[in-house]
Amino acid sequence: MIIVMGVPGAGKSTVLSVAAEAGWSVLNYGDLMMEIAKGEGIADRDQLRKQPAEVQKKIQKKVGERLAKEKKRELILDTHCSISTPGGYLPGLPFALLERLHVERLVYITAKPEEIMKRRAKDPTRSRNDQDLERLIEHDLINRAYLAAYSALTGAPAKIIINADGQVERTQAEFRALLA
Amino acid sequence: MIIVMGVPGAGKSTVLSVAAEAGWSVLNYGDLMMEIAKGEGIADRDQLRKQPAEVQKKIQKKVGERLAKEKKRELILDTHCSISTPGGYLPGLPFALLERLHVERLVYITAKPEEIMKRRAKDPTRSRNDQDLERLIEHDLINRAYLAAYSALTGAPAKIIINADGQVERTQAEFRALLA
Amino acid sequence: MIIVMGVPGAGKSTVLSVAAEAGWSVLNYGDLMMEIAKGEGIADRDQLRKQPAEVQKKIQKKVGERLAKEKKRELILDTHCSISTPGGYLPGLPFALLERLHVERLVYITAKPEEIMKRRAKDPTRSRNDQDLERLIEHDLINRAYLAAYSALTGAPAKIIINADGQVERTQAEFRALLA
Repeated sequence: MIIVMGVPGAGKSTVLSVAAEAGWSVLNYGDLMMEIAKGEGIADRDQLRKQPAEVQKKIQKKVGERLAKEKKRELILDTHCSISTPGGYLPGLPFALLERLHVERLVYITAKPEEIMKRRAKDPTRSRNDQDLERLIEHDLINRAYLAAYSALTGAPAKIIINADGQVERTQAEFRALLA
Repeated sequence: MIIVMGVPGAGKSTVLSVAAEAGWSVLNYGDLMMEIAKGEGIADRDQLRKQPAEVQKKIQKKVGERLAKEKKRELILDTHCSISTPGGYLPGLPFALLERLHVERLVYITAKPEEIMKRRAKDPTRSRNDQDLERLIEHDLINRAYLAAYSALTGAPAKIIINADGQVERTQAEFRALLA
Repeated sequence: MIIVMGVPGAGKSTVLSVAAEAGWSVLNYGDLMMEIAKGEGIADRDQLRKQPAEVQKKIQKKVGERLAKEKKRELILDTHCSISTPGGYLPGLPFALLERLHVERLVYITAKPEEIMKRRAKDPTRSRNDQDLERLIEHDLINRAYLAAYSALTGAPAKIIINADGQVERTQAEFRALLA
């Protein structure tokens, strides 16, 4: 399994579009959480977010079990390195989850913070958890530290792809090379 | 348990004063170490610091056992992300300790390095392990990496609070919100 | 065991020459890998690099077993914090390996990125995986995050030695102090 992560505005979906073309399946971690949450009577993402930590951990555990059983090859897990919340950065791959997965590679999509801020400003439908440039720089920095911790735990290589403005094809080519 | 960390001069005590007002108990990790060390015939912090690594680890283990048994709710552990020593950065929460604790949240108090240096210069009673600005920047950076590792291990959110000059009330309000 | 790491051009060999003088044994991780690989019919480093991940992991495991059994005192392991490969940063000390070792201290040798780039330019025999300054800065940054993760796992102090241009003796003295 290849795990692809990135902050909003880094261009993760641009990169993931390549995966589908190359015949890889993409599972979105948030969708998996919601699928299992619905079985527990939770209606939507907003309600899921408001659940106590124990309920969230229980659902995370079930997602982990589901992913651990996944036999499909050429599988990409689309998730976050960490999520910026008012209570702090939530790890996207806590060790309890990560230890259950067979990780071949970790990929973190990012870009110059100034470029990410501009992209976000153009897309008002997105929530903006990192409200200013300083917080975004902080988030990108701690994401790289989470990335190293995930890589140290699993032994999987950590690839950082810089998705610079106007370089979409280069970014996509760099990602495609990882699927070969 | 909420774990609060910060380099000297970041303003940790200013933040922790809020905890007491809000009815939370604050345990200082260094005090706990010393309490147990005294039972082993070690007189003071200076003597504790000079103990061989095995003795220090043994005492750390006992502190971990004590903290793991702690049943009190609304408990804050006051410690360091890492301690700057001549031999390198010592992790405040080695995994062997952290795995024993029930961590709800990790909080790292910091500030602009230049502001921290100025605060330290005004307080000559404090030891200054990071003697120049470059070393302090290095320490703050690696602290954020330790923070991410602790968060990845426990699954607990990592909150970074920037305690800017002249913004004490804002800092305290940000911390108070985490206790609600 | 003391583990010494550094990016190419940081000056690791300059530092390690001190170790030999002080009577410490230095084991090179890459050499150990190659030694065991030869027993598996792998001819050279190039061939080793091209082996599938499972084969590499199997060899790594054997190196770990060998190192875990190493009874020699005053032993230095010479390795990388992470290796920059086209597929991403490969952790030099994945937790599965690190958990087997008795680590007393972690040392990371580095320098200003601009200085490292200049040193590399003067030494054309070396491979240059971080081809430009931005990538080198990225590599040095993630190395510090790996370092913190290794330190958090083992509880061992993480020492960062800045090997500045023209300061070889200072660097060596700083390292010598760690061996005392």
